[in-house]
Amino acid sequence: MFAFKARFNSDRKNPPNPQRPCSLYLNRRYIIHKEVRTMWKPDRSDKKPIYQQIVDHIERSISYAELPPGSALPSERKLAEQLGVNRSTVIQAYEELRASGLVESVVGSGTRVSLTKWGISPSHTPNWRQYTEGGTFLPNLPLMRRIREVTQNDASIINMASGELSSDLFPNTIVHRLLREQHFQEHLGYDDPQGYSPLRNSLVASLKQYNGIDTTESSLLITSGSQQSLYLITQCLLSPGDAVAIEDPSYCYSLPMFQSAGLRIFRLPVHQDGIEPEDIAALYRQHRIRMVFLNPNYQNPTGTILSEAKRKRLLAIAADLRIPIVEDDPFSLTSFSGAVPPSLKAMDTDGIVLYIGSLSKIAASGLRIGWMIAPQSVIGRLSDARQQMDFGLSIVSQWVAERLLASESFEDHIHQLRHALDGKQRIMVQSLKDMLGDKVTFCQPQGGLNLWCKINQPVDDSKLLEESIKRGVVFVPGSVYGSEPGYIRFSYAKPGLNDIPAGVAAFSRALENI
Amino acid sequence: MFAFKARFNSDRKNPPNPQRPCSLYLNRRYIIHKEVRTMWKPDRSDKKPIYQQIVDHIERSISYAELPPGSALPSERKLAEQLGVNRSTVIQAYEELRASGLVESVVGSGTRVSLTKWGISPSHTPNWRQYTEGGTFLPNLPLMRRIREVTQNDASIINMASGELSSDLFPNTIVHRLLREQHFQEHLGYDDPQGYSPLRNSLVASLKQYNGIDTTESSLLITSGSQQSLYLITQCLLSPGDAVAIEDPSYCYSLPMFQSAGLRIFRLPVHQDGIEPEDIAALYRQHRIRMVFLNPNYQNPTGTILSEAKRKRLLAIAADLRIPIVEDDPFSLTSFSGAVPPSLKAMDTDGIVLYIGSLSKIAASGLRIGWMIAPQSVIGRLSDARQQMDFGLSIVSQWVAERLLASESFEDHIHQLRHALDGKQRIMVQSLKDMLGDKVTFCQPQGGLNLWCKINQPVDDSKLLEESIKRGVVFVPGSVYGSEPGYIRFSYAKPGLNDIPAGVAAFSRALENI
Repeated sequence: MFAFKARFNSDRKNPPNPQRPCSLYLNRRYIIHKEVRTMWKPDRSDKKPIYQQIVDHIERSISYAELPPGSALPSERKLAEQLGVNRSTVIQAYEELRASGLVESVVGSGTRVSLTKWGISPSHTPNWRQYTEGGTFLPNLPLMRRIREVTQNDASIINMASGELSSDLFPNTIVHRLLREQHFQEHLGYDDPQGYSPLRNSLVASLKQYNGIDTTESSLLITSGSQQSLYLITQCLLSPGDAVAIEDPSYCYSLPMFQSAGLRIFRLPVHQDGIEPEDIAALYRQHRIRMVFLNPNYQNPTGTILSEAKRKRLLAIAADLRIPIVEDDPFSLTSFSGAVPPSLKAMDTDGIVLYIGSLSKIAASGLRIGWMIAPQSVIGRLSDARQQMDFGLSIVSQWVAERLLASESFEDHIHQLRHALDGKQRIMVQSLKDMLGDKVTFCQPQGGLNLWCKINQPVDDSKLLEESIKRGVVFVPGSVYGSEPGYIRFSYAKPGLNDIPAGVAAFSRALENI
Repeated sequence: MFAFKARFNSDRKNPPNPQRPCSLYLNRRYIIHKEVRTMWKPDRSDKKPIYQQIVDHIERSISYAELPPGSALPSERKLAEQLGVNRSTVIQAYEELRASGLVESVVGSGTRVSLTKWGISPSHTPNWRQYTEGGTFLPNLPLMRRIREVTQNDASIINMASGELSSDLFPNTIVHRLLREQHFQEHLGYDDPQGYSPLRNSLVASLKQYNGIDTTESSLLITSGSQQSLYLITQCLLSPGDAVAIEDPSYCYSLPMFQSAGLRIFRLPVHQDGIEPEDIAALYRQHRIRMVFLNPNYQNPTGTILSEAKRKRLLAIAADLRIPIVEDDPFSLTSFSGAVPPSLKAMDTDGIVLYIGSLSKIAASGLRIGWMIAPQSVIGRLSDARQQMDFGLSIVSQWVAERLLASESFEDHIHQLRHALDGKQRIMVQSLKDMLGDKVTFCQPQGGLNLWCKINQPVDDSKLLEESIKRGVVFVPGSVYGSEPGYIRFSYAKPGLNDIPAGVAAFSRALENI
């Protein structure tokens, strides 16, 4: 059927205990950030001095009560970073605001909007801090927030952290052309709760063609990327306190959504050929796990493929225990050789697999199109719940996705994408070998967007990250995926061809320095 | 500023006790429906007989494990309705499936997928029923499900239930033209977590122009319609057990999301000129309500406008108690006279109003574009949480919305929409007067999509609805909005001009018959 190609250097001394529950978040309180989220930037073509533009913007935000009395402003250093200006410019702006009495600085607690300006008493403003600390949503992991902050505010940084394709790998030409040439004539009203019917039809065909999956339109739900599929499953089919199993390491660890849903999470260590199906039975006996989340093809972050023999055993064990398997499959079409590994769903005769796919990693993340295949009773429940959240997806983006999938050029696009990713991976592998030699060990998957590297010396994750950021490169420390320290996920999808060696060189200098 | 124009016939004998908590859902278990959700329909142009197409479709669904062993099939009557075929056709199809052993009928429990076909033991299939009963999402109200079912499956029914514009009121020509003429060239990657920056910029201008609201791009969050704004607020800023106040009657009662979030709901009776601000203070003293949800302009369902004097008192009381107000404002631009009532947000100097708007009721619901204005700390928290749910909205639909708002034709569109809604309302009012006379009492709002009618005789809500459906018209019983029995919401936005008198006539016959 398909050849297993991943090579995995499994030299872990202490594989994590599969029965240790993960409590990454369990005791953590929501951390309040002294951060003004603003995508506003000064206009450099404006004649008005930049410090004055900053003053005006903050004054406006205060007068519109968008920065209520007592709100914390970001530190001078941080705001300068966010706006891409000199720190001295921000200092000048804050001085002006202090002079006017609009803001005040208190030693040790930074700069705040004045509590008494304009006679507004802060006791008239809701305690927004208390409100934003409430609710059931945990914030993103601090390391992930740090990475996002860096990549958002520094366009020059070499981004080996993002799991997104670089712009040139998107099917830009096809999408721009189809919008120009194919006349959108669809009804602009609420769509079917399961999603745009022609898109589900096209997916039935392409899931058959590329993944060997037989399905019907009525068993498909269109979602806002894989993210919404996972969100619907964790929110609607599981209850707080339920035990679930996920791979270790796993992308799912980076998702606060699992903890937000109050799930107890148990680990399935990933080996060279994927997880051990028998570990599922063991977890079931001990913890009555109710669901298993797997990414069998080019697993994120390790790049491994679950072997065919294990797939069969896995399905048999899951059927025997009547445990549903969630198969997250974002990468299978990136297979460099073009031979797409068969999905669990294609082998599932008992209706135990919930299959999740998406256009994000193979076409364009900004379209926000994903899908789920599930038994019809599950699809009914999830589409009903999704109506309560957002009333479904825009008809325009679904139409674009349908036209894209149906386009004759889509197959060419996938072909080019595979070729380009293969090339980028080769360059990264060569750079790592040349510049780091035996300081790192890694496998070389034959698809996907990531290299999973072990650093062959003891390192402090966050320190290495900060040192690397200083030198102009960013990546994701393995701890984000629940692994023990000393692992790193390097993505080769986002950086340009020339940036890859430069990024590895910067990383190499950072590693030397700590 | 603006003239208050709504006339309200307030002859309620027993205004609901504002301090009685609403427990519409509190003791209700999730109801399992014997329903195959399928948008599949037989192809009448196909030479294959329709019963055979149904057989093939169900066989396929069973063999793909999408209808696992033991799944309930819909009743013959129901499936016939769903597919728009004769009941005898479905009976023939089920007979064929029974003959092949694929399905079996058990007296009293309908038709099910065989438990033993193909040697698949049902004990190998997860107990999907148990899974779909779990989770934190309550299903939609049974009456709402009934209405949706009827409108989805019977294209000929006169729809005075939907709060959606009819197709001809959408800006179809503008949207089709801009997609053809304005070349989409945007980046296809992940968007800013707060939403597409040019759209937020356009909104800053149009909120100023139409609603008198001063705001900045950094205080705006783009959401999937108002629905997602409300969902984010209830999920992220409130915690289970929190008390909130909503209008009575209110659109919010129809939203299981409030109960799904575990909120305790208290009522603010709506009078001719809106709620009594002092009721908020009373509720706060007794129940420490943490948030107030209001729809001050052309309130759904009553059509009332909160008077200017009450707006001022409301803001003063809320500021005094430090309680945030959520201002849901989907209808203000529909004002027939063109004079848009000023929003609470425009009068809010303390930063206590969270403002929610959307394109759904003024342009096109299928674009799924809404927005929220909030203090920047709140926007930061909500956009962070939204990333966990769906990673934001599609860039394509946001681009269309931005181009639409920026288009010179948008103002014409709003003008035409107002004129058309005014005309439709007049026809409905005249029909009600002519055909029902003093059997109903209603106010005549000068904007919005709805008429709120009192039936001047004791009636059974569901019975009246079913009788009306039989006669070809559907509406929303007032109980869906938490009102006492005997009220009805008639929407004039969806039915065609000629359908309005026909729908009222059908309703009149139904009322006579019970």
